[in-house]
Amino acid sequence: MSQVIPVREALKLSQGEEVTVRGWVYRRRDLGDKAFVVVRDSTGIIQAVFSPSARGHDAARRVTVESSVIVSGRLRDDPRAPGGKEIQGENLEIVSLADNFPIRRDASREFLLEVRHLAVRSRKLTAVLKIRDTAFAALHEWFRTNGYYEVQAPMFVSAAVEGGATLFPVKYVDGSTVYLTQSSQFYLEALIFSLEKVYTVAPSFRAEKSRTRRHLTEYWHAEAEAAWMGLEGILKVEEELISHIVRRVLEKNHDELTFLGRDLSRLKLVEPPFPRISYDKAIEILQNKGVGIKWGDDLGADEERVLTMEFDKPFFLYGFPESVKAFYHKNDPSRPSVTLSADLLAPEGYGEIIGGGERIDKLEELVEKIKRFGLNPSDYEWYLDLRRYGSVPHAGFGLGMDRLVMWIAGLDHIVDSLPFPRTTSRTYP
Amino acid sequence: MSQVIPVREALKLSQGEEVTVRGWVYRRRDLGDKAFVVVRDSTGIIQAVFSPSARGHDAARRVTVESSVIVSGRLRDDPRAPGGKEIQGENLEIVSLADNFPIRRDASREFLLEVRHLAVRSRKLTAVLKIRDTAFAALHEWFRTNGYYEVQAPMFVSAAVEGGATLFPVKYVDGSTVYLTQSSQFYLEALIFSLEKVYTVAPSFRAEKSRTRRHLTEYWHAEAEAAWMGLEGILKVEEELISHIVRRVLEKNHDELTFLGRDLSRLKLVEPPFPRISYDKAIEILQNKGVGIKWGDDLGADEERVLTMEFDKPFFLYGFPESVKAFYHKNDPSRPSVTLSADLLAPEGYGEIIGGGERIDKLEELVEKIKRFGLNPSDYEWYLDLRRYGSVPHAGFGLGMDRLVMWIAGLDHIVDSLPFPRTTSRTYP
Ligand SMILES: [Mg+2]
Ligand SMILES: [Mg+2]
Repeated sequence: MSQVIPVREALKLSQGEEVTVRGWVYRRRDLGDKAFVVVRDSTGIIQAVFSPSARGHDAARRVTVESSVIVSGRLRDDPRAPGGKEIQGENLEIVSLADNFPIRRDASREFLLEVRHLAVRSRKLTAVLKIRDTAFAALHEWFRTNGYYEVQAPMFVSAAVEGGATLFPVKYVDGSTVYLTQSSQFYLEALIFSLEKVYTVAPSFRAEKSRTRRHLTEYWHAEAEAAWMGLEGILKVEEELISHIVRRVLEKNHDELTFLGRDLSRLKLVEPPFPRISYDKAIEILQNKGVGIKWGDDLGADEERVLTMEFDKPFFLYGFPESVKAFYHKNDPSRPSVTLSADLLAPEGYGEIIGGGERIDKLEELVEKIKRFGLNPSDYEWYLDLRRYGSVPHAGFGLGMDRLVMWIAGLDHIVDSLPFPRTTSRTYP
Repeated sequence: MSQVIPVREALKLSQGEEVTVRGWVYRRRDLGDKAFVVVRDSTGIIQAVFSPSARGHDAARRVTVESSVIVSGRLRDDPRAPGGKEIQGENLEIVSLADNFPIRRDASREFLLEVRHLAVRSRKLTAVLKIRDTAFAALHEWFRTNGYYEVQAPMFVSAAVEGGATLFPVKYVDGSTVYLTQSSQFYLEALIFSLEKVYTVAPSFRAEKSRTRRHLTEYWHAEAEAAWMGLEGILKVEEELISHIVRRVLEKNHDELTFLGRDLSRLKLVEPPFPRISYDKAIEILQNKGVGIKWGDDLGADEERVLTMEFDKPFFLYGFPESVKAFYHKNDPSRPSVTLSADLLAPEGYGEIIGGGERIDKLEELVEKIKRFGLNPSDYEWYLDLRRYGSVPHAGFGLGMDRLVMWIAGLDHIVDSLPFPRTTSRTYP
């Protein structure tokens, strides 16, 4: 038996070469006296054909789908086989014979989620997970190359950054109640006084009851914060970062994107600068399209979807009214009714993937705005301290990694952007 | 005013060159009619001296510690100044004048934790956070270079991997009770059937009531799992990974390690292979040193500390009795009373940073062991499925990132290895 090689490598060898691959049985059928076994590993699939004279013929006939196997034989060109080549099977060792695999072609979405520990083997999810891996790698790469330090903020927090209604309370070891974090932003703001430019990639939690195609109760959140930066600077960071990630996925995951049927030409458009439209303009566009919305209203998923149809690449929506954005956003000095913030919306109906902007850096301005929002400044004591001791202008943003992957991979539901999604109705397996 | 540059760059310029730096006032004093202001940014500290004739002299006299400032002037060699150079100050712009900074030299550990949002600015914590950043970067780099895919497992789980007593329960949106994850291992095991070699870096949670120098209730956990790998293979991965991380920290953080007083010669010893001692031998060593321990007992922090004094580099402790390791560890076929697992212990008293080994891959063996441990196989249904459908030999490990940083940076308490530690008594700020 030759040395085990990945399926992808085997497919590059020439007719007549001896190969050994190992993996799982993807398909199996008999045709006349021959047994056809398609083997998948993490790199691809390859077909092996066993004639009655082959040592592995019997094993090839009785092996079941998803059994783990080691297959050896000689490579042979065959235009009908997946990858244009097949193995003329010599031996097939069954490492572990699988029970009757419960996943069928016609399985419902709900059933697939119930057996997610098995469904992650599908070629679709495998492709998505590879794209997701590239997206995470490219994110780290961009930040590190651009002078950002990776940091970690706590998951247990004693107060909410935004909306208390969507907090998960946890009973702590000392008997007190703490909450699961919704954002690391405030902690990143504290760390810019040490490291100036920081980022983190970590879970965030929202006890959101709404069932939508783009909400998870637990999601992966990439957040960044930079000292001495304003709105203009942070938008540049966002468009450079997103373009870099998409470029890397196009480079490394051409096969996976193609397998998923993703329109590559759409992704190739993702280059800076991204279009910018004002909230005012967005309201006008929506009203012209007959959407019942007026200045001052927040944009929901439906409004976002309508807007995204106007663009073929990601675009910034800026100049939101004060009331629809969190209190920490700095108001525009030249037009105090709107904030120096922007959302980044992905095209093709995907909508918001980033929210960010310039933070209030003056103590008085922050205290006043907290009060104006009906909140209690004493709940934000340590956050206010950051404005008492050497405050600097700064800006930052939060990127939903799962939504990013959903858009890049062209998925129709966020649950398929990560291996074990948590939604309002699902925490198993 | 010249363009703003990092302090580290300013210190490389020559006498007479014009410089502008910005950051925070680290120290300030008057000497005769001159004002001395030491400015820190994320890259270092530099002193600026303001004569009465300098435009910024008045500001330099009244500026307070931790105020944010922009300082410009001409560089001058001065062997007495930190870094061997100082700025002959021309102007000092106070961006934000700080209130009386609450942290004094004699601050207690407890007070420093209470104002951690300000304490993170200390040169010590800044140095540690840079080392930590390098450790995370090097970890990602090693895994990606070696064919591992980064994945993310859920934080909300419906059952415990180990010890139910240390679980944090969370009331979920649907009214059910879920738990915060203690390990992503089972999920990584599911994912090897898709990606073969996977890793993750994510928070894990332990509702541990013990107050020690090395326990956190929330910690950063790097975990890996590989298909077609046994104990020997995974120990090689561990020693290569740890050596790579230490090498990178030595390369990139020489200044930070030196500032922290770390003995670099100890870190330079960290190269593969790592010594391996059996549990049997460890018991013998401990008994010879008069420690009251017998074969079959687990090793606690105290026993580990004694053992680590015998080694000047990390070492593996293998062959633990079945009863002291979790049920999923494969027993050694040639000696079934012990497991094919190993802990990696850091020297100099630090102790366990990794636990890992080969997993049971046969269904019957796993079911029997679950029962032998007094657990209920039906609580592990989906985990058992991984042995029903194409099981493969596999191994993996979990690395405590905070403990790793604690050891590399030579810290005496784990709370200083991360920015916002969570312990039994602390969830603020
Ligand atoms: Mg929105
Ligand atoms: Mg132990």
